[in-house]
Amino acid sequence: MPESTNAITYARDHRERFLSELKDLLAIPSISTLSEHKPDMQRAAEWVTRQLRDLGFKNCAVLPTAGHPVAYGESLNAPGKPTVLVYGHYDVQPVDPLNEWTSPPFEATVRGDNLYARGASDMKGQVIAVFKAIESLVRNEGLRVNLKVLIEGEEEIGSPNLGAFIAQNKEKLKCDIALNCDSGIARPNLPTIVYGLRGLAYFEIWVYGPSQDLHSGVFGGSVHNPAQALCELIAGMHDADGHITLPGFYDKVRVLTDDERAEIARLPLSDEDWRATAKVPELWGKKGFTTLERLGALPTLEVNGLLSGFTGEGSKTVLPAKAMAKISCRLAAYQDDNEIEAQLNEYMRINAPPTISWQVKKLVTTPPVLVNRDTIGARAASRALEATFGIKPIFKLEGGSVPVVSTTKTVLGVDSIMLGFGLPDDNLHSPNEKFHLPNFYRGIATYIRFFDAVAE
Amino acid sequence: MPESTNAITYARDHRERFLSELKDLLAIPSISTLSEHKPDMQRAAEWVTRQLRDLGFKNCAVLPTAGHPVAYGESLNAPGKPTVLVYGHYDVQPVDPLNEWTSPPFEATVRGDNLYARGASDMKGQVIAVFKAIESLVRNEGLRVNLKVLIEGEEEIGSPNLGAFIAQNKEKLKCDIALNCDSGIARPNLPTIVYGLRGLAYFEIWVYGPSQDLHSGVFGGSVHNPAQALCELIAGMHDADGHITLPGFYDKVRVLTDDERAEIARLPLSDEDWRATAKVPELWGKKGFTTLERLGALPTLEVNGLLSGFTGEGSKTVLPAKAMAKISCRLAAYQDDNEIEAQLNEYMRINAPPTISWQVKKLVTTPPVLVNRDTIGARAASRALEATFGIKPIFKLEGGSVPVVSTTKTVLGVDSIMLGFGLPDDNLHSPNEKFHLPNFYRGIATYIRFFDAVAE
Repeated sequence: MPESTNAITYARDHRERFLSELKDLLAIPSISTLSEHKPDMQRAAEWVTRQLRDLGFKNCAVLPTAGHPVAYGESLNAPGKPTVLVYGHYDVQPVDPLNEWTSPPFEATVRGDNLYARGASDMKGQVIAVFKAIESLVRNEGLRVNLKVLIEGEEEIGSPNLGAFIAQNKEKLKCDIALNCDSGIARPNLPTIVYGLRGLAYFEIWVYGPSQDLHSGVFGGSVHNPAQALCELIAGMHDADGHITLPGFYDKVRVLTDDERAEIARLPLSDEDWRATAKVPELWGKKGFTTLERLGALPTLEVNGLLSGFTGEGSKTVLPAKAMAKISCRLAAYQDDNEIEAQLNEYMRINAPPTISWQVKKLVTTPPVLVNRDTIGARAASRALEATFGIKPIFKLEGGSVPVVSTTKTVLGVDSIMLGFGLPDDNLHSPNEKFHLPNFYRGIATYIRFFDAVAE
Repeated sequence: MPESTNAITYARDHRERFLSELKDLLAIPSISTLSEHKPDMQRAAEWVTRQLRDLGFKNCAVLPTAGHPVAYGESLNAPGKPTVLVYGHYDVQPVDPLNEWTSPPFEATVRGDNLYARGASDMKGQVIAVFKAIESLVRNEGLRVNLKVLIEGEEEIGSPNLGAFIAQNKEKLKCDIALNCDSGIARPNLPTIVYGLRGLAYFEIWVYGPSQDLHSGVFGGSVHNPAQALCELIAGMHDADGHITLPGFYDKVRVLTDDERAEIARLPLSDEDWRATAKVPELWGKKGFTTLERLGALPTLEVNGLLSGFTGEGSKTVLPAKAMAKISCRLAAYQDDNEIEAQLNEYMRINAPPTISWQVKKLVTTPPVLVNRDTIGARAASRALEATFGIKPIFKLEGGSVPVVSTTKTVLGVDSIMLGFGLPDDNLHSPNEKFHLPNFYRGIATYIRFFDAVAE
């Protein structure tokens, strides 16, 4: 393919400044879930918009939503060529527990090959990578595709207003391909392209016993402890083979083809590598599947939080009135969150003992996604990665959920290319989040080549 | 028995003032576990000591311990008669959740037959009842027994310094009988005498998975969730018959005699009464035993608290690094807390999967207590209750734990008479704690008659 070699060279020559600009964006504590950071959200959106304006983009603006604003800009100077909608987000997760960070989360710090900061990998690093690819093209061979760049501020809180924003701006956002940079690869030297994402259905389960906390000496032994009852119910949600027992839970789950299983098996990620990444004594999962199949193609039921009774220091001899669990399912293609909700309620109806009462509340959901592997975008991503990394990329299924990919498909009718450079051990959502700097630079080169390939 | 009829009449005539003095003591927020209430602890100890001094007691003093002080006073004017050590505590539990109180916890309020305040039943009401019995005797027929009154300030935090205090003051506290007023009866019109108390062994169980919280999308399905593992372990600690499965758990448990089962069955407390008191949909417990047998004679394993992962509002898709449960066992006679600790560790060794690591921490323990029902004190209590209530009292086993009863037996060599007037629905340790006022007054009469009967 005709490569923009000057742009590639330019990118290599300006690494220091690119890193410095990334650090500037990382210094803005744009935590979307905490209302005290509202001014920071505005600052981050303006920072992003200013970058686009400096690249000569048109219609650059901080566009309001019912929540945090969207940063937008477009470059439509390539008539007859495809239009790519570039998606990213400028918001980040909270930083607690703060005392577990080695360096301050909003003072990006290089240690070894990594840049440590909240948002480094998820995903300001990738926003800057794609921006710097655009800059490298704009300042050299020029952009040969049309670009619409949308960087939102609510991804970490489930993108509650993005669906409405896209629907209201359907014409403005019309495109041929969506490029979602909020993604990752399997290993530093192993390029991968994500063609499927798990969905999410997030619940709270409440178990109620006595109407108020009781004295465990006076009542203990005669009343079913709601925390115990909740544990019994949760324990029953998996059998000894790691199989989820909600009635009908696997009925709709898409079965992998032999080709897909073979492709997944190409990923040279051993169980020992994954165990070391997760830092657990042993891996675990549903019998009959490999770890990578479990992560990409199987649904989960996970306890995200537990709370009941007295949890402070020391001892309080209370028999709690109630107990709560946050439970979420990652959904495989073609599971449906409404069906999962019904199955969870059915499980509770069948299994909850008459000694307690209970309630299931649905909090948030995202449908699973499966995209076509044989499109212009997918082929372009594959060629760009191979040219940059020197290895044919592996198509893989990803365990996480990206709500915007579903929305883009539903509202705009386009599949998303998920092309990003996070790594599994980047500590997303955790202390000491990091971004692998060699892949920050390879990411820039890959995006340059991706835009080239799309234009071909 | 020769009754101090003038004292009984005096007590009836001074009810209003007695209630007013109880309210004064209840107005002092003597919460032993909260360090900001340290001055209130001193005030409460001084208030109690002043009462004893006003009764003409000698050696009245606020005696220091390593923690909150002990209020002490003695009256030794009955040569040749038994000496009774009267035990009580002036400290109370915290009041949270404050918004669930109908009236402020430290402004004692009469509604119907009840006085509502923190500490009303546990146990300032009973401290004042015994003090007013003493006053009624002192101002009329006079005391015909010797009394040593010890009111401590750390019962609600497990009496950490009382054992050392009693051991250091062994000679000073020498006595023939101990009267522990920190007790209750089954129903307002049904006098009972407690002859056994369950012990306590309180633990924290920690389950550790990954070294830090993980993204539930990236890792979910490949790692054993520690909150789920903890639930599985807790669920396995009881079988479907409510039987506790720790290895050897019931081996030492004292089996009730047929006589005792018959005596316990005399208590006219129906399961429906108890269910309504506990405010639960249905009762629960180990198969093959009545509710009262379960409460008095069987050990328990209770979840007092659960904590893991994200428990705030909304959704955070975290796979938690660790999960914690506060677990406590009420111990039946003759269980031993060290053996229970070993059994809990053994259970974890057998059942914890290799996918997680774990730790059991022992927090506090109290041995179970069983006292002789055929002593001067027990007979005196029985006669005093029968004379006051017009019904022969029932000897019963109590579910709670009173550490001082063990200490009194071990260090001073005397059995305690547990004679108090709390009720099962007094909301001990909960919002809207109350004391039944008719039994406040009957309690005073009972204590007068008890001292009379002991002196005989």
